[in-house]
Amino acid sequence: MSKAVVLLSGGLDSCVSLAMALESGIKCEAITISYGQKHLLEIESARRIAKYYSLEKHLEFNLELSSIGGSALTDHAIEVPKGDLPDSSGHKKPKTYVPGRNIIFLAIALSFAEVRGADQIIIGANILDYSGYPDCRPDFLKSFEKMASLGTFKGINETGIEINAPLIEMSKEEIILKGIELSAPLGLTWSCYDPSGKDPCKLCEACQLRRNGFEQAGYVDLII
Amino acid sequence: MSKAVVLLSGGLDSCVSLAMALESGIKCEAITISYGQKHLLEIESARRIAKYYSLEKHLEFNLELSSIGGSALTDHAIEVPKGDLPDSSGHKKPKTYVPGRNIIFLAIALSFAEVRGADQIIIGANILDYSGYPDCRPDFLKSFEKMASLGTFKGINETGIEINAPLIEMSKEEIILKGIELSAPLGLTWSCYDPSGKDPCKLCEACQLRRNGFEQAGYVDLII
Repeated sequence: MSKAVVLLSGGLDSCVSLAMALESGIKCEAITISYGQKHLLEIESARRIAKYYSLEKHLEFNLELSSIGGSALTDHAIEVPKGDLPDSSGHKKPKTYVPGRNIIFLAIALSFAEVRGADQIIIGANILDYSGYPDCRPDFLKSFEKMASLGTFKGINETGIEINAPLIEMSKEEIILKGIELSAPLGLTWSCYDPSGKDPCKLCEACQLRRNGFEQAGYVDLII
Repeated sequence: MSKAVVLLSGGLDSCVSLAMALESGIKCEAITISYGQKHLLEIESARRIAKYYSLEKHLEFNLELSSIGGSALTDHAIEVPKGDLPDSSGHKKPKTYVPGRNIIFLAIALSFAEVRGADQIIIGANILDYSGYPDCRPDFLKSFEKMASLGTFKGINETGIEINAPLIEMSKEEIILKGIELSAPLGLTWSCYDPSGKDPCKLCEACQLRRNGFEQAGYVDLII
């Protein structure tokens, strides 16, 4: 039986990735990384999702990326952009880009996976992200997997740890439809980058992508 | 002028790597990662080395790897081995192996380097480490560099960030001789994995490698 560490952010994508993995009979443990993001509500969402699925292990890992700065998601001196969707050329750096975020997240998940004896890491990266963020693209993920097989004992002595991005080719609409098909708890997920209190801003790119996705899927979102 | 982020642990190797980079005219900033290691004294050493060289920027980054566990360096339930040098086959996992440590450290240094506009990361990995730790071997470092060029905007839009391991082929004796040649502050460095108060244990692998290195170089170590 395959065992996975799921990078569970608390957003839609990681929730549906987890649902898909459980559906295929993979034993799942989760790791949620609190990295100093302004939208800490997603951590609470991740807790609820892990509880919903009665995961045996859910590690919350603290990482103060705000000390490095350089992103609207972690640096209070940079405002989260409103009303703009990310540039789709893949060459313009969005303000919400956190330099190296997925590289760091995957590295921490890899350490956890090696300690826990998992043979794969599941990450909810998808086509919408990889138009804006280089560390969500398939060739990056493949290259990370190769590097990981060279840099861990598991990779040297056995087979390496696979990096699995089940949503990589899916649109937000398809992700939402898949989540609904699997009865994933989408109402527990959180997307907004810049909440005010407990309310989503409805204007940041994460809110817009979510709203468009639900509209295209023909379902009502209970969150936005 | 090249700009580097130096992974400065506070040990001999990173101190000499920094000295070599400064000697070659590279502008250096440093990052020191406090990862829940038992030998926190090395952080104080890193501070002193950064001060000695009047580095413009020295980031101390906190990372609780003890929450992942699995290593004698971070897990208080596992004792630091005494009297044994690491197996040199490269296939036996030393108890002091911290799963994925260099992958995580390089990932964080990469994020910092991208934000600070550096074009290289300097890491003190060397031949003695890479007999015991897969994440110190040259082919791993080369693979990390390739992955990093695919996963960052700097890598996509310009040239990627180089991973530079200037000591990779050097023995501890050669590293110490190089440090002395460059007047590096070796007396400020810290190596012991398992200090008792402010005293090195003299028995762990780090103490033994350091002592053997100084003996072979024909110099007196002020620390052990």
